[in-house]
Amino acid sequence: MTFLGRSLIGTSDAAASGQSFHAMNPATGTELPEPFYIATPEDIDRAASLAAEAFPVYAATSPTERAAFLRAIADEMEASRSDIAARVPLETALPEGRANGELGRTIGQLRMFADLVEEGSWVDARLETALPDRAPVPKPDLRSMRIPIGPVAVFGASNFPLAFSVAGGDTASALASGCPVVCVAHYAHPGVSELAGRAIRRAVASSGLPEGVFSMLQGTGQEVGVPLVDHPAIKAVGFTGSRFGGLALARRAADRPEPIPVFAEMSSINPIVVLKGALSQRSDALAQGLAGSVSMGIGQFCTNPGVVLVPEGDEGEAFSASFAAQMDASKGGTALHAGIARAYDEATRGRTARADVDTIASTDNELITSRINPWVFRTTAAALLSDQDLASEAFGPSTTLVTYRDDQELYRVLYSLEGQLTTTIQCADSDLPLNSALVHALQQRSGRLIINGFPTGVEVCQAMVHGGPYPATTDGRTTSVGTAAIERFTRPFCFQAMPHAALPAALQDGNPLGIWRLVDGKRVNA
Amino acid sequence: MTFLGRSLIGTSDAAASGQSFHAMNPATGTELPEPFYIATPEDIDRAASLAAEAFPVYAATSPTERAAFLRAIADEMEASRSDIAARVPLETALPEGRANGELGRTIGQLRMFADLVEEGSWVDARLETALPDRAPVPKPDLRSMRIPIGPVAVFGASNFPLAFSVAGGDTASALASGCPVVCVAHYAHPGVSELAGRAIRRAVASSGLPEGVFSMLQGTGQEVGVPLVDHPAIKAVGFTGSRFGGLALARRAADRPEPIPVFAEMSSINPIVVLKGALSQRSDALAQGLAGSVSMGIGQFCTNPGVVLVPEGDEGEAFSASFAAQMDASKGGTALHAGIARAYDEATRGRTARADVDTIASTDNELITSRINPWVFRTTAAALLSDQDLASEAFGPSTTLVTYRDDQELYRVLYSLEGQLTTTIQCADSDLPLNSALVHALQQRSGRLIINGFPTGVEVCQAMVHGGPYPATTDGRTTSVGTAAIERFTRPFCFQAMPHAALPAALQDGNPLGIWRLVDGKRVNA
Repeated sequence: MTFLGRSLIGTSDAAASGQSFHAMNPATGTELPEPFYIATPEDIDRAASLAAEAFPVYAATSPTERAAFLRAIADEMEASRSDIAARVPLETALPEGRANGELGRTIGQLRMFADLVEEGSWVDARLETALPDRAPVPKPDLRSMRIPIGPVAVFGASNFPLAFSVAGGDTASALASGCPVVCVAHYAHPGVSELAGRAIRRAVASSGLPEGVFSMLQGTGQEVGVPLVDHPAIKAVGFTGSRFGGLALARRAADRPEPIPVFAEMSSINPIVVLKGALSQRSDALAQGLAGSVSMGIGQFCTNPGVVLVPEGDEGEAFSASFAAQMDASKGGTALHAGIARAYDEATRGRTARADVDTIASTDNELITSRINPWVFRTTAAALLSDQDLASEAFGPSTTLVTYRDDQELYRVLYSLEGQLTTTIQCADSDLPLNSALVHALQQRSGRLIINGFPTGVEVCQAMVHGGPYPATTDGRTTSVGTAAIERFTRPFCFQAMPHAALPAALQDGNPLGIWRLVDGKRVNA
Repeated sequence: MTFLGRSLIGTSDAAASGQSFHAMNPATGTELPEPFYIATPEDIDRAASLAAEAFPVYAATSPTERAAFLRAIADEMEASRSDIAARVPLETALPEGRANGELGRTIGQLRMFADLVEEGSWVDARLETALPDRAPVPKPDLRSMRIPIGPVAVFGASNFPLAFSVAGGDTASALASGCPVVCVAHYAHPGVSELAGRAIRRAVASSGLPEGVFSMLQGTGQEVGVPLVDHPAIKAVGFTGSRFGGLALARRAADRPEPIPVFAEMSSINPIVVLKGALSQRSDALAQGLAGSVSMGIGQFCTNPGVVLVPEGDEGEAFSASFAAQMDASKGGTALHAGIARAYDEATRGRTARADVDTIASTDNELITSRINPWVFRTTAAALLSDQDLASEAFGPSTTLVTYRDDQELYRVLYSLEGQLTTTIQCADSDLPLNSALVHALQQRSGRLIINGFPTGVEVCQAMVHGGPYPATTDGRTTSVGTAAIERFTRPFCFQAMPHAALPAALQDGNPLGIWRLVDGKRVNA
């Protein structure tokens, strides 16, 4: 496997000059051999300008053409499977099995958006027939649909080198909507990014699309991402990563002469509420399930449960002990990169040092090899209520059990929490019917409510919501997973009295695409 | 007609104490007799807190209950028709006929949202059936729908004392979605606002809803609106007004510990592109139609056409002369308030003073009585390209004709313009087919493209888009007119493996509401 080491600007490779960097193997703490050159200001400008140039042509492609393009990307990713599966472990310490699984998910997402675009109803076409004789004023012919917003900047995520990176969900949904994409590869996995970027570039070429439909820049968010977000050709941003990074981009985008939307999926501690009945019914099974969810992927998921609310009392004590034992027996592993290992170590050591927190499971982290291990803390609802820092995210295989005295204290904690991607209730039949105040509190704080499951594992489908109130995301009115993710990169547009021949097919008389439309208030697909 | 002069905090009237102000009759420049008391910080806090308290109860109302409530507001507004129609002219100088027409539109909007809510499909329900035996991992039961975002702050607009004010489109769409509303009455029409606010309050009471569903605060955006936007209970903002005001609120909302979305509809010059064929075919009719659009409502519409691009040459000259004559013959009128008259006078005098602008129609404004008169300016595309200030909004019965040499110069001008609510093409058969580059340029710059019409007159319906790229609005992915306006105050929410009895009716098996849903990818209403 050889690497260009260059940014991919349309069909051109950027020059192999200027500053370069190497990926690190987090398991060994050593550099991988290949140099990757940081995109220059000229590279960034050229990628964004090519995207703007490609936009009118790409936005006008038919649903069939766009679906074929997305499927071509999926096929090219599949064709790169062995290279990708070999490179992911080197750059991220994720095992090859995970790489293969995540690649499957990535390919599945691309094909899902191809199906969505081909079916076509997602554009939300609405037609109103003219009433030229209406008094006092005639009603004009009005037809609206979602149109793509323009070139999108996509930032790769460290914890999903495939499914939330170069050919991941943000890119797939932006391309599906008709927006060109300029991707900023995550600096921790430049090689995997290049493999994905070259797969997309081949699909652009074989689909006969303008080269500006896709470019990929190497470098960090600071060096490359910020000037890209500043570029006037860029009209929206997709980001998955830290709160620090997401908020920095959101502020930058808001300060542009023309502010643009930033869809940043940032941080979440995904609280789990354990009700009494669940403890009585299945304390050990719950402890085991929770340990699996907390340690899955070495805790490096945005849906990792960071706070578990447990009722005070003997059953709560037994559950804590059982869970601590499970976690002590579970294995840690190598963090995705050294920065995550350092932050995790700092967060866990900080919590251990507190008087109002008990450390009930712990194994020292090993920073030289970026090895992070399971840590479990325990505190009270009263302590959490007096210091929200106990509910801050410690990205890694750690969680904090918080004991609560009664429902009132539980609700006070829930209302004190920041916005989350998910909330979970663990309950038994004896806890039903669910208290509507509890359900309301959890709904207000998240984008998805899970009953008797765990937040890790995000189904990619039509009904998924992977989003939530700030600071889980910068825009809680959206999802970054599932078909509805396409809406982020679109806006509604209305044609008034447009000559029929100039209308997009989705809005033409006779419904040539056979899509579901709202015609004079009636939903029809004829 | 007597006025309380107090803010309406749920069912209570705020105290008649502290600072007060009087509405001005713009036509006479004198104060109207009734004092209105400015909401205190305590009033603001109480209104927002009551809204937060009402939210869970109100959000859980059935579609039938919510529709009945919206219709009750419509009926109460109708019952106040004579008082409203008598007060509007005093506070805004708008004629009684306009007041009656706008009231009809306002009532129509409320009933439209009632119908939308009752029909119910707007919640975008999506169901995915569980596959417990799927390998390698089971698929959970997932059901998502739009839910209300929380209490909404709505700012009344000066130029639509009814349709975009207390009981206007923002309030109607927020209430329809399930969000309580705290309204800031526009200080220029506090009496009309009180009449509308009392109508809504009566409907809250007769519908048996918690009092916090609606409150209305008297005072200015600065004194009352800013602290309201800062209040943690408020989760979104609806605003129609100046760019200065909208951006100030947007910045404030972005700087909150929990930033919230602001839907501000701000400024637009609604460019009209006149093609050669249109001039050859119907120059005089076009001049007459344009004069009507520019002077309608004394030019105080956000869809007022502020720039008209006309091809250079003899036909363009003839059109300019004809249009200038029409405008000279048209009448100005009293501005909505003295601030608008002053700003208009300043803008028109500033343009007149420029060497690169010809003033081709003008009648002195009369500031003592806030009378603003038609002004028409003329310049060249080259001048506009060198100074965008020529394309800034002069809110009132004014427009600027801009002559362009060829298509290339026309496109350069279009791409230089800021985001707009609307764009318009005036063409004849000889101009068809429309150049796709022209259509793309106008789409990129606006939310609605009108062919052979005028931008004034915004149909309230399912297909309308009254929105557009910044700075026409702060969020170009939305509309503030038409049924889709409801989406602004909602977010998607997903229930995973929720006990059936705890699911909202919209997501229950058997589709008890009979709404259109996406079930395992198929759109069905059974």
